[in-house]
Amino acid sequence: MTPYLELEARFRRLSAIGQAAGMLHWDASVMMPPGGAKARGEQIAVLASVRHEILCQPETGELLDGAEEDAKYKGGLDPWPAANLREMRRIWAHATALPTDLVEARSKASMACEMKWREARPKSDFASVSKLLAEVLRLEREAAAAKAEALDCAPYDALLDQYSPGISAGMVDRVFARLADHLPEFINQVLERQAREPAPVLPEGPFAEATQREVGVRFMKVLGFDFGQGRLDTSLHPFSGGTPDDLRITTRYDQADFATGLMGILHETGHALYEKGLPARWRLQPVGEARGMDIHESQSLIIEMQACRSRPFIDHAAPILAEAFGGAGPAWGADNLYRIYTAVAPGLIRVDADEATYPLHIILRTELERALLSGDLPINDLPAAWNDGMEKLLGLKPNNDADGCMQDIHWFDGAFGYFPSYTMGAIAAAQFYRAAVVSNPDIPAAIGRGDFKPLYAWLGENVHALGAFLQTPELTERATGAPLDPEIFLDHLTARYLS
Amino acid sequence: MTPYLELEARFRRLSAIGQAAGMLHWDASVMMPPGGAKARGEQIAVLASVRHEILCQPETGELLDGAEEDAKYKGGLDPWPAANLREMRRIWAHATALPTDLVEARSKASMACEMKWREARPKSDFASVSKLLAEVLRLEREAAAAKAEALDCAPYDALLDQYSPGISAGMVDRVFARLADHLPEFINQVLERQAREPAPVLPEGPFAEATQREVGVRFMKVLGFDFGQGRLDTSLHPFSGGTPDDLRITTRYDQADFATGLMGILHETGHALYEKGLPARWRLQPVGEARGMDIHESQSLIIEMQACRSRPFIDHAAPILAEAFGGAGPAWGADNLYRIYTAVAPGLIRVDADEATYPLHIILRTELERALLSGDLPINDLPAAWNDGMEKLLGLKPNNDADGCMQDIHWFDGAFGYFPSYTMGAIAAAQFYRAAVVSNPDIPAAIGRGDFKPLYAWLGENVHALGAFLQTPELTERATGAPLDPEIFLDHLTARYLS
Repeated sequence: MTPYLELEARFRRLSAIGQAAGMLHWDASVMMPPGGAKARGEQIAVLASVRHEILCQPETGELLDGAEEDAKYKGGLDPWPAANLREMRRIWAHATALPTDLVEARSKASMACEMKWREARPKSDFASVSKLLAEVLRLEREAAAAKAEALDCAPYDALLDQYSPGISAGMVDRVFARLADHLPEFINQVLERQAREPAPVLPEGPFAEATQREVGVRFMKVLGFDFGQGRLDTSLHPFSGGTPDDLRITTRYDQADFATGLMGILHETGHALYEKGLPARWRLQPVGEARGMDIHESQSLIIEMQACRSRPFIDHAAPILAEAFGGAGPAWGADNLYRIYTAVAPGLIRVDADEATYPLHIILRTELERALLSGDLPINDLPAAWNDGMEKLLGLKPNNDADGCMQDIHWFDGAFGYFPSYTMGAIAAAQFYRAAVVSNPDIPAAIGRGDFKPLYAWLGENVHALGAFLQTPELTERATGAPLDPEIFLDHLTARYLS
Repeated sequence: MTPYLELEARFRRLSAIGQAAGMLHWDASVMMPPGGAKARGEQIAVLASVRHEILCQPETGELLDGAEEDAKYKGGLDPWPAANLREMRRIWAHATALPTDLVEARSKASMACEMKWREARPKSDFASVSKLLAEVLRLEREAAAAKAEALDCAPYDALLDQYSPGISAGMVDRVFARLADHLPEFINQVLERQAREPAPVLPEGPFAEATQREVGVRFMKVLGFDFGQGRLDTSLHPFSGGTPDDLRITTRYDQADFATGLMGILHETGHALYEKGLPARWRLQPVGEARGMDIHESQSLIIEMQACRSRPFIDHAAPILAEAFGGAGPAWGADNLYRIYTAVAPGLIRVDADEATYPLHIILRTELERALLSGDLPINDLPAAWNDGMEKLLGLKPNNDADGCMQDIHWFDGAFGYFPSYTMGAIAAAQFYRAAVVSNPDIPAAIGRGDFKPLYAWLGENVHALGAFLQTPELTERATGAPLDPEIFLDHLTARYLS
């Protein structure tokens, strides 16, 4: 066996262990009784440590060296094995960059901090968690420095690379500067325009959960979800998990507003169908996996935001919703529903934000996490800095930290460098959608007929089937002819909200 | 760290990996869409191989040697660590007895054979699977020989030891000879007596699955099952899985006969509550695990057979069942229900058998698997030998192999040496139940009040809390004052069916 083939066998095992851990996560969120929490935590931790150990065995590094030597000697591998090898090296570099004691300290600190946060958030008690967060941050800084050295880049670039390979802090800066410059005034214009239009009327509930689920399943099938290869369940926070042939998505239902559950389903189905479309030939290999969190988010947002909040889709969905929920009257008309699902309203909570205000939430978090990491912002000044930033960007001031700097789990769980992927994903979604429509102008009309095949044909070929073959910037460029570009996203917003 | 403490850490990881694999099995049987089968097979296989590799690392053997040396030097460990070390050595001996290529060949052969069996059984086509079964058997013989050498015992003893540590072929022979001698004539007497009594009347369905489940949940709570630490679901074959604080039991429902689902639930709850009662101090250590398949079966049978088919329990359950299913009339009276749940009827299918005829099914299988292993019985003669045995033991001749030698998955899946544990478990159940009642004569009356606490107090102290501290024969002796003894089981049968 060549070193490269040995690496394939080794990474195949690592992926299978990763899949096993993912399924245990799904079970913990969807099925597990409370009694299982402790044992489950240990099961997942052991799988993670086994995975880390196999990755960090000296043989893995030797095989990587050997395979790279071989490739040079032969004048290069074929493109897909070459990309697979590149991804293996990247995964290996991240894993081996950190000494074992730092890996453990980081995992313990974020677990302790996250548990405290769960208690402290409902009480809006930042003081009780700030010391633990400071410890998480200290270790995160250490990890960023170690990864920066291993990857030969700046510390924040190294953190970004964990979630969005190929996206640099410089790219994020340029994109976010443009959005921060444009969006506040744009949002004012949208709010003025909305004020001149009839106020949307919320369809009146309650909406039985079982009916909401049936409607969700119906739209999942419209999107192309195959229930022989996946499930829909309920969890506190919607998410998408499972494997390409066993997709597990979840949502949560609000009896008063069916859109919460339904939009969750559409969003997560977008994630799931990306996984389904990954190259089958490269299952369980790094190059066969999703490209990163930004491209993953682009695939949920292209469905939820670009396609399913478009007027053609609302025209298609309105009578289906009215019939399923037994609704009648103007509240159930496409005009009114379109107004609801494209309403812009600055708010304090990121996960409730519309697509126009969402990037400002992300920009705030990105600025603050960089200041926290650099040490420019002391932990104890975070609540005030958050509130000032919200006022500056969205004109709103939180009354408490629960609705302020404590609202998201990410930092308390040790995920720094993750937030930008939400907005980079939104930008990629706009860009992919435009390129798809340019390539096949029938796509919006097909969506209006409840036919997503033309859109998925383009996405399958230009995004899904490529897995992690290209880096994010190259993937975007190949699919759309241009690097990630905020202008197309802004054009989309203008077209939807001001035209 | 001492070698013993290093072993504890190592076996803790192995147990956590085993738990993870168990949960993936549960999910595959209960939740997984068909598309997930292939990836799931690989996930479970990788976890098994990782577990096997850690176990077979040279360090594991060195640590065992070191810990045993230490123990000798110190004049022995405390009893529980000593028993833990003994169990570690046993697990290690089983794992390292087989060369890697035999482990792999065995796993491949049984997977291929089991898959073929699934196809061939509905068609009753033994010829199409006999070659694959011959290969499974050939490898099983090789494995038995290798394990016999490693464990210093006879080959069939080595196979038994995989499932029922401490139970030898000689013990099985003595017990089974007594049963084979006594039961056929006993069954005739019971049949004669039953013929003189009024024929039982089956309550008339259909019984809605949701109601059956509610009734099942109600009785699970009566038994002491805590739904904060477990779940009840549906699967093709009832089973009990999960971990002590996250018990996952399943049943299947028959709309025409609620007893199928309910008895499945009671049986599996017995298994689950054994796991729950295992010593919490020794979680994830070999000594903290269940003693073996025979003791496990004793804990399901003591609930299903000894307690829940007893007259006091039926008196308690009859009005509850009548109310839940809206039944009325003589079919719902305790007299009639007791006749149904203690009916003896020789049949062709083991899993449908009553407690009096069940051992004869097991005796047949045990005789045949030993003859197959020794080579005395050629594979192609198995169907005829099965049919002759059934006629001799139960007076029935199968019309086809689906109802004959192809009915059970065990052999086709490579499980030789497993069958005896069903009947050894039934014997242990009778013996534990009698000892419990001798120790606390209020137990039957309490069960008649729907109060299982007294029975579980005794089982908890004398069986569950001991985990794998003792070998099966010592455990039985300590709990009941006698080794496994078929006479108590036969006394129980006489008392229930002939008095």
